[in-house]
Amino acid sequence: MATDGKVITCKAAVAWEPGKPLCIEEVEVAPPKAHEVRIKVVATGVCHTDWEYLFETGKGMKFRPFPLVLGHEAAGIVESIGPEVTRVSPGDKVIPLFLPYCGECERCLSPKTNHCKKNWTNMQAGVLADGTSRISCKGQQVYQFLGVSSFSQYTVVPDTSVAKIRSDAPLDKVCLLGCGVSTGYGAAINAGKVEKDSSCAVFGLGAVGLAAVMGCKVAIARRIIGVDINPDKFEKARQFGATDCINPRDYSKPIQEVVVEMTGGGVDYALECVGSPAIMNAALESTRDAWGTCVIAGWTETETMSISVEKLLMGRTLKGTYFGASALSSAFKILKQRINLKCLPHKMKYSVTFITFCIVFVILC
Amino acid sequence: MATDGKVITCKAAVAWEPGKPLCIEEVEVAPPKAHEVRIKVVATGVCHTDWEYLFETGKGMKFRPFPLVLGHEAAGIVESIGPEVTRVSPGDKVIPLFLPYCGECERCLSPKTNHCKKNWTNMQAGVLADGTSRISCKGQQVYQFLGVSSFSQYTVVPDTSVAKIRSDAPLDKVCLLGCGVSTGYGAAINAGKVEKDSSCAVFGLGAVGLAAVMGCKVAIARRIIGVDINPDKFEKARQFGATDCINPRDYSKPIQEVVVEMTGGGVDYALECVGSPAIMNAALESTRDAWGTCVIAGWTETETMSISVEKLLMGRTLKGTYFGASALSSAFKILKQRINLKCLPHKMKYSVTFITFCIVFVILC
Repeated sequence: MATDGKVITCKAAVAWEPGKPLCIEEVEVAPPKAHEVRIKVVATGVCHTDWEYLFETGKGMKFRPFPLVLGHEAAGIVESIGPEVTRVSPGDKVIPLFLPYCGECERCLSPKTNHCKKNWTNMQAGVLADGTSRISCKGQQVYQFLGVSSFSQYTVVPDTSVAKIRSDAPLDKVCLLGCGVSTGYGAAINAGKVEKDSSCAVFGLGAVGLAAVMGCKVAIARRIIGVDINPDKFEKARQFGATDCINPRDYSKPIQEVVVEMTGGGVDYALECVGSPAIMNAALESTRDAWGTCVIAGWTETETMSISVEKLLMGRTLKGTYFGASALSSAFKILKQRINLKCLPHKMKYSVTFITFCIVFVILC
Repeated sequence: MATDGKVITCKAAVAWEPGKPLCIEEVEVAPPKAHEVRIKVVATGVCHTDWEYLFETGKGMKFRPFPLVLGHEAAGIVESIGPEVTRVSPGDKVIPLFLPYCGECERCLSPKTNHCKKNWTNMQAGVLADGTSRISCKGQQVYQFLGVSSFSQYTVVPDTSVAKIRSDAPLDKVCLLGCGVSTGYGAAINAGKVEKDSSCAVFGLGAVGLAAVMGCKVAIARRIIGVDINPDKFEKARQFGATDCINPRDYSKPIQEVVVEMTGGGVDYALECVGSPAIMNAALESTRDAWGTCVIAGWTETETMSISVEKLLMGRTLKGTYFGASALSSAFKILKQRINLKCLPHKMKYSVTFITFCIVFVILC
């Protein structure tokens, strides 16, 4: 391509400091170094975690350096590749991932986890393998959120962090596989290992929760109870497979007691897709004695959760997940399964919705 | 037998009220009703849970009615059987269990749990299937702790709660299978599913903890770290298979940080065998990111535990167990395995040590 090996000047939504709205800026994106891939971002989602890092950094969260380009749920097209890249070629459609898969470390070689060690520390610190970012603005290095930074028209990521997808994949939909869908679907399938004919409750019906509902349906769960305080989400949840939808605000008793009564003792699986310790506890307590499993898919790093030891001792299991325990090697098997990609929520086409999103922030600046 | 069908008068350690020492009393033990078995108790252990029910009832614990005969970790000989009992015959050596196995309910038919539903509510309430106890003292009904009451020379239990054992089994040793050994060993083998070449940490080196160490050794764990504030337990722990023993009082930093440093990131499995929420959290935090599993085997029903959500989200699993997830049908497979029954701790031969134990309490009366 004409831009191969050159710095690309493009637009990005820059977070100059924590707690302040993003600003649309002209940024420079350097060419990829060895084992790196430069991507033209076509579509990106907005995740609650982007918001949390912007507004909660310094308030109990680990400090991430600013300025920063957020965004970690995207799909795009490879613009160019650095030396020694063999996984993808320019023109390939890809999904950049905040969780790499090197295929060589102890963790990648284990079927028990998706936590690849490669570049983990650097990606958490907002830089690539050499300790620097490829994005700069006004002469200043701009850090890459989780090593991705999809709120930019172009970005550079490690080659261990790109999943090549089919050339006919609709990027404005499959971008959600970069975080929300894999997280929720994987929480049900990989972490919870939801079984046929089981009963499930999904707490929170955003993108992660709807994907969890979808996972439960694919696992042929008998009953899938969607829980949300916003009843506007119920119709969509039913399309995804929820058999019941309940609003905690419609009850005077704690929602876990409602679920336990509805199911004659509790659900087999509860999936927490919010990121709230109180809801995590409600999810755990909504599961059945003897074998109830509660999977936490919602993210928070600022808080502790308090649980009844006796509830746990009655045979419950509490599991935490990151990216739905989905590894790059397995996450995109989803694409081959019969899931409902047509009605994925919160999709954000870069060219229209993303710019609108940024404009809203700019207005607030 | 001459006593068949008759009331037996014998000695028992009666707990007349919560918070007071036990008193040796003459009690009457009625003949077994249908599906019940009367047992001559030959040996019994003393479990921390006996102490907890005696001294913590009413202080946050569920109320259990008094007077009560405690004791739930025993072995004995069937004295007589009620109508319709087919599992055992008079003269059989047996272990009475506080967790029954009916073999018919939804839970007994599932490989995922040992929580048989049969008589659960009654046994928790200290009575047998007809809602009454078979033990009385001074004309008053005396409740049966967890449906067992082994601090009596004779007791009556449901036939779903007796495990027939080999005629050459040493009762003063195998009595520990009735609680401590099954709980600890099962926590490692059934709940944790400890794997070959893994690293483990066992918190608390009492009977449950030593059995957990034994379970880890049987699973061929590579490293087994015993943790206790009493270094006198370390020699025994090493006999059972501990490769390292550490005392939290020897360190200025939290013990979980010590374990993480010793193991280059944490153990694969942690087994909490104390029943303390603070130690449960330390055990969880001593496990490795990505796949660390923490099993809670120690019992408490009075408290909550507080855990870091982020630690959980990094791929950890927290599992609670009751009786080591061991079902009657499987618990005694232990006997067939190559475990070290010769140096089981805290064994209590009824005729000598139990009486000594009771005398201590009587002195305190």
